[in-house]
Amino acid sequence: MLAYMNEEAWTKTVETGLAHYWSRSRKKIWLKGETSGHVQKVQAVYLDCDADTLLIVVEQAGGAACHEGYASCFFRRLQDGVFTVAEERVFDPKEVYKA
Amino acid sequence: MLAYMNEEAWTKTVETGLAHYWSRSRKKIWLKGETSGHVQKVQAVYLDCDADTLLIVVEQAGGAACHEGYASCFFRRLQDGVFTVAEERVFDPKEVYKA
Repeated sequence: MLAYMNEEAWTKTVETGLAHYWSRSRKKIWLKGETSGHVQKVQAVYLDCDADTLLIVVEQAGGAACHEGYASCFFRRLQDGVFTVAEERVFDPKEVYKA
Repeated sequence: MLAYMNEEAWTKTVETGLAHYWSRSRKKIWLKGETSGHVQKVQAVYLDCDADTLLIVVEQAGGAACHEGYASCFFRRLQDGVFTVAEERVFDPKEVYKA
């Protein structure tokens, strides 16, 4: 998955060992998994050459990072010019995100 | 590595099979490897759940994607609170990017 961090998200991530992001749509700090329980336990953090991107290796609770129930948000693969679902769902979003 | 694509970069990537990006600093289309020869042959393309990010699997010519000579731009790892180089250089940037 790709998500945004601001300084507060980064600080909370370091303090707790659980990935926090900045939700641009909700304009608030977002503990990944706060609704689904699918938290991300940080295993390693890498910084890129121009120091504006982090690569975070996590242990993913529930086995799925994507809110659509897939292990990865990148579950569609380009095949013959069309993006086609190329993974199996780990969970049913309707079961996890109940009203 | 993380880089930006606009529509033209994406079209050229699909047409040529070589990764093209949009350089925000130079404000131009950028064939990755145009200076270094370290082009990226596209092997697979994945689209994320909200369709604003691509994950591109490439065969990396020269074995290094990073202009600093490392296989990955994410060559620094957080260790005891400090980002520390955690990879070996594949090439010397001074040799590859000559004046």
